[in-house]
Amino acid sequence: MRIAVIGYGGMGGWHCDLIGRIEELELAGIYDILEERREAAHSKGIYAYETLEELLGDDTVELVTVAIPNHLHKDMCIRVMQAAKHVVCEKPVALNHEELQEMIDASHENQVLFTVHQNRRWDEDFRVMKQIYDQGTLGKVFRIESRVHGSRGIPGDWRNKKECGGGMVLDWGVHLLDQIMQMIPEKLVSIYTELSNVTNEECDDGFTVTLKFEHDLTVVVEVGTSNFISLPRWYMLGENGSAVIEDWQLNGKIVMVSDWQNREAVPVVTAAGLTKTMAPRTDETIKEYPLPRIDSDIRDFYRNVVNAIRGKEEQLIKHDEVMRVMKLMEALFESGENNAVITDFEERCKK
Amino acid sequence: MRIAVIGYGGMGGWHCDLIGRIEELELAGIYDILEERREAAHSKGIYAYETLEELLGDDTVELVTVAIPNHLHKDMCIRVMQAAKHVVCEKPVALNHEELQEMIDASHENQVLFTVHQNRRWDEDFRVMKQIYDQGTLGKVFRIESRVHGSRGIPGDWRNKKECGGGMVLDWGVHLLDQIMQMIPEKLVSIYTELSNVTNEECDDGFTVTLKFEHDLTVVVEVGTSNFISLPRWYMLGENGSAVIEDWQLNGKIVMVSDWQNREAVPVVTAAGLTKTMAPRTDETIKEYPLPRIDSDIRDFYRNVVNAIRGKEEQLIKHDEVMRVMKLMEALFESGENNAVITDFEERCKK
Repeated sequence: MRIAVIGYGGMGGWHCDLIGRIEELELAGIYDILEERREAAHSKGIYAYETLEELLGDDTVELVTVAIPNHLHKDMCIRVMQAAKHVVCEKPVALNHEELQEMIDASHENQVLFTVHQNRRWDEDFRVMKQIYDQGTLGKVFRIESRVHGSRGIPGDWRNKKECGGGMVLDWGVHLLDQIMQMIPEKLVSIYTELSNVTNEECDDGFTVTLKFEHDLTVVVEVGTSNFISLPRWYMLGENGSAVIEDWQLNGKIVMVSDWQNREAVPVVTAAGLTKTMAPRTDETIKEYPLPRIDSDIRDFYRNVVNAIRGKEEQLIKHDEVMRVMKLMEALFESGENNAVITDFEERCKK
Repeated sequence: MRIAVIGYGGMGGWHCDLIGRIEELELAGIYDILEERREAAHSKGIYAYETLEELLGDDTVELVTVAIPNHLHKDMCIRVMQAAKHVVCEKPVALNHEELQEMIDASHENQVLFTVHQNRRWDEDFRVMKQIYDQGTLGKVFRIESRVHGSRGIPGDWRNKKECGGGMVLDWGVHLLDQIMQMIPEKLVSIYTELSNVTNEECDDGFTVTLKFEHDLTVVVEVGTSNFISLPRWYMLGENGSAVIEDWQLNGKIVMVSDWQNREAVPVVTAAGLTKTMAPRTDETIKEYPLPRIDSDIRDFYRNVVNAIRGKEEQLIKHDEVMRVMKLMEALFESGENNAVITDFEERCKK
């Protein structure tokens, strides 16, 4: 299947590299509005369409990946779909759920596949934590914390402009929230968000959201861009144990209680007090395990797209999933801007 | 100054030891309702009053420390004050602000000093973080996280009974919240709390509270008792750097940005994507420093009490400070139980 990529920035280049490693796909070429980027592609041996019309008019191209600034996604994707081509759109798919609905409608009207590059469903850290959760390794899980911390502020290009869909909720938040929605099937009871504006007034440069799910499960999702020391990427608490993934290299561990009866503790004496409640457990009552390893192949994303177009598989990144995350991000902004708890999310999703 | 201790449990014994190390004080004896505890004191060479009346009738005793279950604090402290003795009460001082007001009124009526053992103001980890905050080491601070994590659930005695003032908000929360109130003079804008009941239905066995202060400062205070892996004790983020204290041993560091202009990053490639925004900084653009060391002497608590009674010093743990923290804990419970943000805390404090 021949595929073209619109937008040859960081992610556009990433898609071209990925496509080159997938047998089922052949890169027809790229288009970018900037001549220098078209030349950059050309110098790498990639065909660069001179105009968007040339790309859309290329009948050999069945599938198009759209990797351009967020606020341009909707119009471009619809235009590509109207040219009877299937579309993979970069994340965040759109700026709000109304835009997304227009895009979904266009896919139905033009009878083409439309999906979103939620590539971080293939990140191994996520898959490891999902497995721990699914297998009940820690007993009943009551708290999950998913954090991504950087220290460079937000990028200085369109990604710090509100009208372009800048900010970290839409950038990294969309990944982390999508992962949580994949992991947790329970109903979402409430949403409370703090938005941060440390380095950037116009857009959020980070956020912390507390998601309460049914059955006493709390999930915290956090993105920070002024964190010179990082907290762990993942932190999961179950009744019988805890799991942590520290970093991108998947350093981490599982610690399980092995002896509930033994409550022995050596009290911790600090400068000004002592505590037995908060004393570490003795080594005899806990056991440490390595994290499971899970292989993941991001090429499966495009393989699924090809198979779904050919009618051989169901599309993995589904419209209702993308819509749910989009509405969740809208609720995040609303909660953060009003400093209020949102409790009617599931009703909003029914509309 | 001769002092007696009422209650010879864990903290009562701790007070006796501490008093023995303070030149200004002489331990007159202890009283406990349990004979076995009176005998335990006796066997350690401590005089054990046979009855409460005997203790209260001992005119050589000027000061009494009350270290009994939380729900008994109010009546006992008032009784001791009515016997014209100064009082140090263990924390939490009372179960609600009405009780505390009665105690404060009793101290005025009987013209005795009444204070609370907020000993963790002398903890070195707190003092180190307060110094970093006060000196502006990190630039403008926008986030502080203070956590205490254990893994034994809550103690099985009266501390898991609601009517006794059990639960972690009143137990450890009172310390951590008092520390934050000492650190942050800004107005408290809002409070959002999650209470946890992992091992105990009746009382909270942990909580997370998000406190938003004026001037864009967010503070998270958290206590957990089912955390088999602990997150850092302190985590502070400023515009120019971050600080962390990992544990009770004060392991930790400060990381400061040394070169804002240099935004170079080696993108992090994960299984399913790449990120430059979240890539760690290169070593040339940050600098790591050890935490400052601060000596602290918990004996200064009692020295201040003695000096305040003698009219030589102002009382360190003040009624309005204790009242503010008590009302904060009430707001925590209200927020947690209603899953709502509380925004009128400062007005509540004026009443």
